[in-house]
Amino acid sequence: MVADLTFYTNPQSRGQIVRWMLEEVGAPYDTEYLGYGGTMKAEPYLSINPMGKVPAIRHSGKVVTEVAAICTYLADAFPEAGLAPPPADRADYYRFLFFAAGPLEQAFSLKAVDFTPPPERRAMFGHGCWEDAIGGIERMLGDREFITGRFSAADLYVSSQLGFMLMFGMLEPRPSFSAYVARCTDRDAYRRAKQLDEQAAEELKAQA
Amino acid sequence: MVADLTFYTNPQSRGQIVRWMLEEVGAPYDTEYLGYGGTMKAEPYLSINPMGKVPAIRHSGKVVTEVAAICTYLADAFPEAGLAPPPADRADYYRFLFFAAGPLEQAFSLKAVDFTPPPERRAMFGHGCWEDAIGGIERMLGDREFITGRFSAADLYVSSQLGFMLMFGMLEPRPSFSAYVARCTDRDAYRRAKQLDEQAAEELKAQA
Repeated sequence: MVADLTFYTNPQSRGQIVRWMLEEVGAPYDTEYLGYGGTMKAEPYLSINPMGKVPAIRHSGKVVTEVAAICTYLADAFPEAGLAPPPADRADYYRFLFFAAGPLEQAFSLKAVDFTPPPERRAMFGHGCWEDAIGGIERMLGDREFITGRFSAADLYVSSQLGFMLMFGMLEPRPSFSAYVARCTDRDAYRRAKQLDEQAAEELKAQA
Repeated sequence: MVADLTFYTNPQSRGQIVRWMLEEVGAPYDTEYLGYGGTMKAEPYLSINPMGKVPAIRHSGKVVTEVAAICTYLADAFPEAGLAPPPADRADYYRFLFFAAGPLEQAFSLKAVDFTPPPERRAMFGHGCWEDAIGGIERMLGDREFITGRFSAADLYVSSQLGFMLMFGMLEPRPSFSAYVARCTDRDAYRRAKQLDEQAAEELKAQA
């Protein structure tokens, strides 16, 4: 089958987030697996993403890269999935999406290499420092059930980012985070996505 | 006048980008100036942005933080300004917004402190390294006049990010970047915003 929607990924990458989003959307899609350092950094994939990174999607001839952009795009492209608030009511929606794609992602990357911005240069960093970013998202989430009142692409992305941090042991399992992540991931689409990626990872391992 | 829209900023911050966006939108707004290390890191502002950063906006009681989120929000909240494509056609729009808010911003911050991710850890960094991020945005822009065919909030944000890098001498003035930034900023709203921030900076200096 050649679907109008192609998903470029590696099952052990952030592509897991997009897989979940695709399963929420429910439209048929083809999957192309790329190997780290191999097909990912060569043509024809570099024409899809010049950064040589997965995931990416192509939908009706248009390419989207960057996990948060793909989630936000799919929520708009498939409105029947009900994963985006109406355009006039997106204050929290965009705030959390861009916070998680910017400061939170930055905090995560720098923590992974144990780099702390020097105090006098923190104003250069959108996340300030690890504690600022984690404290910021905790305070922003507060006691919300979901970011916009009901589950949306913003919850999918933010809970995935927090989930990765918890999984890698970078984030202490504060109840506020753990409960939020558990609430967001308690969905059939999440379970389907996880199973598909685990299966793909095994198949790719067997081929290697 | 108490407008339904309040702009929290410092004229020497990335708030300049939001000022430009507000001038494009054309709705009346009040401006509150915050001082670095002072009012910015204290209540009541911390209730607006727990990160203690500017800019932020409050519109009809809703707070938005993060420059890219604010631009994306305003484009949707004021559709008559024509700064966002219709929701069904936002592949490039979101791709560039999130690329500039994530990898490009990360590249910029790390270059400012002269930190290069070790090659074996680059997969942890959305931007890979400075050269990857700059090469990526250059290839993505290609010979487009604007990101989505006509000037949008994505151009406003991306050209501002590139403009800051050029201004700080971090980015060599490749013709592709310089011409794109010049094309985007050749607008009355940009010139008005620049003048308002320059004037505010002088007034705040005189008060200090």
